[in-house]
Amino acid sequence: MERVLIANRGEIAVRIIRAARELGLQTVLAASEPDRDSYAASLADDVQVIGPASAAKSYLDTAAVLAAVEASGADAVHPGYGFLSENAGFARAVTGAGITWVGPSADAIELMGNKSRARQAAEDAGVPTLPGSDGALDPDVDPLPIARAVGYPLVVKASSGGGGRGIRLVTREEDLVGTVDVARAEAQAAFGDPAVYLEHFVQRARHVEVQILGDGERVIHLGDRDCSLQRRQQKIIEEAPAPLLPDGVRETILASSIELGRQCNYSGLGTIEFLYDSDQEQAAFIEMNTRLQVEHPVTEMVTGIDLIREQLLVASTGKLRLRQEDVTFRGHAFEFRINAEDPTQNFMPSPGTLQRLDWPGGPGVRVDSGVVAGSAVAPYYDSLLAKVVVWDASRAEAIQRSVRALGEIRIEGVKTTLPLLSTVLQRPEVRDVTHHSKFLESTPDLLGVQP
Amino acid sequence: MERVLIANRGEIAVRIIRAARELGLQTVLAASEPDRDSYAASLADDVQVIGPASAAKSYLDTAAVLAAVEASGADAVHPGYGFLSENAGFARAVTGAGITWVGPSADAIELMGNKSRARQAAEDAGVPTLPGSDGALDPDVDPLPIARAVGYPLVVKASSGGGGRGIRLVTREEDLVGTVDVARAEAQAAFGDPAVYLEHFVQRARHVEVQILGDGERVIHLGDRDCSLQRRQQKIIEEAPAPLLPDGVRETILASSIELGRQCNYSGLGTIEFLYDSDQEQAAFIEMNTRLQVEHPVTEMVTGIDLIREQLLVASTGKLRLRQEDVTFRGHAFEFRINAEDPTQNFMPSPGTLQRLDWPGGPGVRVDSGVVAGSAVAPYYDSLLAKVVVWDASRAEAIQRSVRALGEIRIEGVKTTLPLLSTVLQRPEVRDVTHHSKFLESTPDLLGVQP
Repeated sequence: MERVLIANRGEIAVRIIRAARELGLQTVLAASEPDRDSYAASLADDVQVIGPASAAKSYLDTAAVLAAVEASGADAVHPGYGFLSENAGFARAVTGAGITWVGPSADAIELMGNKSRARQAAEDAGVPTLPGSDGALDPDVDPLPIARAVGYPLVVKASSGGGGRGIRLVTREEDLVGTVDVARAEAQAAFGDPAVYLEHFVQRARHVEVQILGDGERVIHLGDRDCSLQRRQQKIIEEAPAPLLPDGVRETILASSIELGRQCNYSGLGTIEFLYDSDQEQAAFIEMNTRLQVEHPVTEMVTGIDLIREQLLVASTGKLRLRQEDVTFRGHAFEFRINAEDPTQNFMPSPGTLQRLDWPGGPGVRVDSGVVAGSAVAPYYDSLLAKVVVWDASRAEAIQRSVRALGEIRIEGVKTTLPLLSTVLQRPEVRDVTHHSKFLESTPDLLGVQP
Repeated sequence: MERVLIANRGEIAVRIIRAARELGLQTVLAASEPDRDSYAASLADDVQVIGPASAAKSYLDTAAVLAAVEASGADAVHPGYGFLSENAGFARAVTGAGITWVGPSADAIELMGNKSRARQAAEDAGVPTLPGSDGALDPDVDPLPIARAVGYPLVVKASSGGGGRGIRLVTREEDLVGTVDVARAEAQAAFGDPAVYLEHFVQRARHVEVQILGDGERVIHLGDRDCSLQRRQQKIIEEAPAPLLPDGVRETILASSIELGRQCNYSGLGTIEFLYDSDQEQAAFIEMNTRLQVEHPVTEMVTGIDLIREQLLVASTGKLRLRQEDVTFRGHAFEFRINAEDPTQNFMPSPGTLQRLDWPGGPGVRVDSGVVAGSAVAPYYDSLLAKVVVWDASRAEAIQRSVRALGEIRIEGVKTTLPLLSTVLQRPEVRDVTHHSKFLESTPDLLGVQP
């Protein structure tokens, strides 16, 4: 492996270029036309333009990306997160062309991409799951008795959904059949697969996840994270380790996540997501993401391990060089996502040119940015500009340091979510960890707007 | 302690403001007229102008600084490094006014400020020292037999000198008496004290130092650093831990540094500097700095401990909260000093306005800057703009990451030492740790100029 094509953009493209460069690898950026002048493009050794602004015709166009691989002479593809990162067909096409795929096998992607099969695999590995239907509902079988066994409230989930998409809540038995029918039709339209399944719904839960890394034979964990601070199912602040998690729960999710990885011969980075019910002190499987996660830096800050470096090394050598005992934990880290959105206008995207961009500095502060002063923020893509990551010896100190660091940021030219972040972080619910994943949606007084 | 006055400027003023703010302390910046619009001034809660551009009439003017303390209602003074930080009279005046001095006692500053007394104290504490005269030379005693016992080459050092000033090399016996006479006259003129002493001279040595922290009763160490990469006795790249130091040598300098701190009831941060002769595998005391060190961030990166936070807490509470076993070490860190100087013009200062300033980011990269884009770089002071600090799991990886990070920096508007740093770091002597403190001076091909 000598030349890695990065099939992504923005901050994660910059992040992957950095990791590749530190390993002495050459980097090729597959960029859309508006992204050919991006900060990531300025850092890459080579830029291949793969299409116009439309993601469907560039970052999601497998043929265009594969043509860029061939044209650039790249011998590996890193898909980042989003876009083609969990597209098993693309992974298969890449490896079929004799190119190294920086990620798990297409089979593992496929298994975890089907939510009801993934749920079954989790159960088989001893991962705690919520009560639910036994796989996808059979359209010819009455769902009512199954739902009664699962218990209300429950959610109807599209088997092929993911990332919060294709989920419908049912609180009353009389709504069940209609909702299942609608969900099935929607799933067919959205994912080309009508299969849906039922799962018990936990009203108030935190979102906790486990980071694993494998080489197809051995699998290790790199600890856990909490990503409960979300708006519209999008995380805005993440932290590691997950706070106030009872030892027994932590041990269970870490050990069973490793077992799940082992059972599917997992290679590379993966994340097993859980709902954690702090009243019941119980965690339950949601899904597994078979790719790098946006919030991976908080794990890097507490372990001192460069996840993308290890991911590239596993892909390159086929071997995991770390043993579980090499992974040690120190302190606490928060990640803050800085999105170009207007918090006073219901978080509408706020494109523009960055006239000024002063990042914070000093101890424990890391910035992963996809932009520099003068960069254009295009309206075509996800609004994530940068992530500010803050480490300190304890969670309380990390909060103090984060407030300090966020206060140093000056961004001119676009509106950002920055004002919301510091406000949220200083809420007593967050400090005391009594918040849950619906906290922002249920707290409309934050900035006086619906988050 | 609620309101700290910072009697300093530039990056270290920013650094201290950050540490104070994270502790919930208010900050007052004592600034010269040109510095009232500095980045540090923009971050401070209050700015007190203490005089014109001339350091003698502002940052070195004890009366002006004390007036600012009174006017601002500050209850503590942090002197940073340089300027008044090792001025025992100022420390005494601060404490005499009932204000907390963030540093060791005036007695400790005075003891270590006298190089021959400091050498004696080091010997008494079991710190290894070089052969030398027994304290200052008696003007009425023939120095020749003393010099013969010390051994040539040797240096004649001013007792009141420091930081590389007031030192003269003698390689031949016939030069001794004349050099002692000249050194005595110079010392009288420069330091108001004619006392000089002799010390054996080590031709090729690395500069190694130990960081200690005490509260007057207990003293702990925070490991060691290597600062051998210097030009004109100014460090340009520092690292922690000191590489290729035999275990026995490391144990000796750490333990004896603690003992030296104990014997002078040391409070706050202090650094014991050593020459390390890698051929003989011997370390020998040079001097002790009774203040925060420029290169403190490399220690912070490997220990995870915020040195200035601990320094402020010791000053505020009188108690060290850390025990030796709380100090653990992880990985390796380098610090790179970015000076506004022109490497092609014999490192002449390069003042101007920063038109562009893009810092590096990503894992393991920390920036401690005294400037932002648009800042004016004045010609009146030390040319240090910022420090870029890079951590990684091993020294070899930290070098790779540093090369990557330094390559991302874009500074427009002033010339800087940046091109030199990456070149020096990639020299095989530095990679293999065969360099010594005269390496840059004796390697004129670096950038084709005399460093």
